[in-house]
Amino acid sequence: MKNFTWWNPTIVIFGEGVIPQIADQLAAVGAKSVLLVYGGKAVFKNGVYAQVTGALTEKGIAFPELGGVKSNPTIDKVREGVARVKASMVDAVVPIGGGSVFDTAKAIAAGAFYGGDVWDLFEGKASELERALPVFGVLTASATSSEVNNIAVVSNPEKSSKTSFTSPFIFPRVSIIDPSVQFSLSEDQTVNGGIDVMIHVMERLFGGAPDVELMDELGYALVRSMMKIIPGLRMDPENYAARAQYAWAASVAHNGFLSCGREERGDFSSHKLGHSLSLLFNTPHGASLSVMMPAWARYLYGEYPVPFARFAEAVFGVGVGGEEDMAIEGIERLESFFRSLGAPTTLRELGVKEGDIERLAENAAQFAPFGVLKSLETEDITEIYKLAY
Amino acid sequence: MKNFTWWNPTIVIFGEGVIPQIADQLAAVGAKSVLLVYGGKAVFKNGVYAQVTGALTEKGIAFPELGGVKSNPTIDKVREGVARVKASMVDAVVPIGGGSVFDTAKAIAAGAFYGGDVWDLFEGKASELERALPVFGVLTASATSSEVNNIAVVSNPEKSSKTSFTSPFIFPRVSIIDPSVQFSLSEDQTVNGGIDVMIHVMERLFGGAPDVELMDELGYALVRSMMKIIPGLRMDPENYAARAQYAWAASVAHNGFLSCGREERGDFSSHKLGHSLSLLFNTPHGASLSVMMPAWARYLYGEYPVPFARFAEAVFGVGVGGEEDMAIEGIERLESFFRSLGAPTTLRELGVKEGDIERLAENAAQFAPFGVLKSLETEDITEIYKLAY
Repeated sequence: MKNFTWWNPTIVIFGEGVIPQIADQLAAVGAKSVLLVYGGKAVFKNGVYAQVTGALTEKGIAFPELGGVKSNPTIDKVREGVARVKASMVDAVVPIGGGSVFDTAKAIAAGAFYGGDVWDLFEGKASELERALPVFGVLTASATSSEVNNIAVVSNPEKSSKTSFTSPFIFPRVSIIDPSVQFSLSEDQTVNGGIDVMIHVMERLFGGAPDVELMDELGYALVRSMMKIIPGLRMDPENYAARAQYAWAASVAHNGFLSCGREERGDFSSHKLGHSLSLLFNTPHGASLSVMMPAWARYLYGEYPVPFARFAEAVFGVGVGGEEDMAIEGIERLESFFRSLGAPTTLRELGVKEGDIERLAENAAQFAPFGVLKSLETEDITEIYKLAY
Repeated sequence: MKNFTWWNPTIVIFGEGVIPQIADQLAAVGAKSVLLVYGGKAVFKNGVYAQVTGALTEKGIAFPELGGVKSNPTIDKVREGVARVKASMVDAVVPIGGGSVFDTAKAIAAGAFYGGDVWDLFEGKASELERALPVFGVLTASATSSEVNNIAVVSNPEKSSKTSFTSPFIFPRVSIIDPSVQFSLSEDQTVNGGIDVMIHVMERLFGGAPDVELMDELGYALVRSMMKIIPGLRMDPENYAARAQYAWAASVAHNGFLSCGREERGDFSSHKLGHSLSLLFNTPHGASLSVMMPAWARYLYGEYPVPFARFAEAVFGVGVGGEEDMAIEGIERLESFFRSLGAPTTLRELGVKEGDIERLAENAAQFAPFGVLKSLETEDITEIYKLAY
């Protein structure tokens, strides 16, 4: 195990009927006015907007609004939010939505006290932050763990860049998770989010760290659980027990805990390769991962069979043959599982043409070299996109 | 899943060579003087006392000392510490030791700002607390998770009571865990601590909660890991990878996470039955549990076979037969495992006489009814001690 620091100060209030507590939590810290951040129509349809604004009104808390956050959120919306909070100082930023809305709100909260352009934080200046507005959020779609971590991921289309920054100041102070409001998520959202959760764990399992068998076992357990939960929700999307376990697994997968003791806290090459797909083709995050993680694994299992073989055994019960045979069988079974959910496993299914591969590789290579199991250079990246095609 | 709130603000700094960071952390909050709390000679032998006091001296932080905390710590020592911090106000309490030292320090920290006798906190007054001194600790023996939770367990021999209180104010602010200082723990300490860790998880697994399969899977994974780590450390006590995973498993087992979604956060009858053994016979905590958990399970598996059968399957691979058969086979295998470690599984081995059973049952029954899987009354408690004999 590598040395590590574990700290996650977010208060999670979890369960059916807990949403109005957002206002109690804000009132407890004396908030008088908050910037309410959300996406599109979903929060009106699922009743969360009404629950939150009703509770805020009851406590006398004003809530200027910033709607229209899109999935794969962009820096423009963050800048718009920063201008708003700088013009009329609010006491907190309150995302109500999924990971994109939380990411946007966290970036706004950080930008509120930052002198320069907020995009600078994504280009290495986040260590200059000394404070941020507190974030109190209500989660309506579980997947990214943004509700419980110190990461914000945002796209900058002008710079053809989708990237992230981390800061201890952007852990949400309070995150409210009522799994029952996720009954209305579409099958696609449920599948994409679930794949994101599984791959958050695999980025760690395939990170090649020694002496973390304990953390590996916890990771395998989480992946196996998700492989039962996701198909169950496709059959029965209003099953509370399954929605609740899905939501909690999603929060745990990427709140930092499963990184404890690992080299650089996980590999995350598949995420970076997927970000270029999201940026250039607006591919949903989960779909970008169900394509890129297997391709990345196929590219590397011959050179590094051990983590893939162990995964094959622990998750799929693959138990005979040499390490390479086990590894490839695990990768194939993972792809089959994704396909069984209706998720894509090739670039072709995403509408990407063979001629686009170079553009994708160039985009991803702006962050190269990256990766822990193997540090990927531009030529590796191109080969992986070819394998994904 | 039941509704829950998850919050654990402790900063854990984990790894080889991290102990001097205690002084940096204290200096960062402006501490000038701290009460250093420890037990016996161990912290001198393993070098931790020298490391901590050296680092404090370097930062100019004074450290009045309170040594002599015993395992199964008593309220007298807590009262002594409270008197000390009230007489010459310090900025923090700094335990260096295992769970007993942390429990004592946390109770002192709470007593510092409490008007009445500190034992009142253990008798239901903890909700009156409005603050506590911050606790910054260095852990030297992993087992109880006291370094990362909001619980303090202390004995009051005059009242024949070993009990606990919880308060959000007694989460340690910072806990430093260097697994390499645990190389010098005795085999008995390693085994007892490891059993404590396993049973912290089982208290949750056997708590009979519905719709927490995800949390169960994580718990089974932790138990299976400990069952590899403990025997490994008996063979090779200076194996850093094993010590590190043991230490981190111990912290995770009882930091509250594995309780999320469960009824009353776990059963904990075996702990309460074991506390009477520790109190009346000074039985080490782990040994009290290796005796009482199997007896408790034997008493209940006929009426509630499901959690025991699932455990048998997930941990021991027991896969044939009816639920009751699987359940008892799992319990027997658990006892065999404890015996393979040299741990006791009967009261007789602890020197308890048949005539002591009534006294034990009376002592435990002062807290009755207790338990989640089954709420235990006095007659149940007596029967369980008889089974344990």
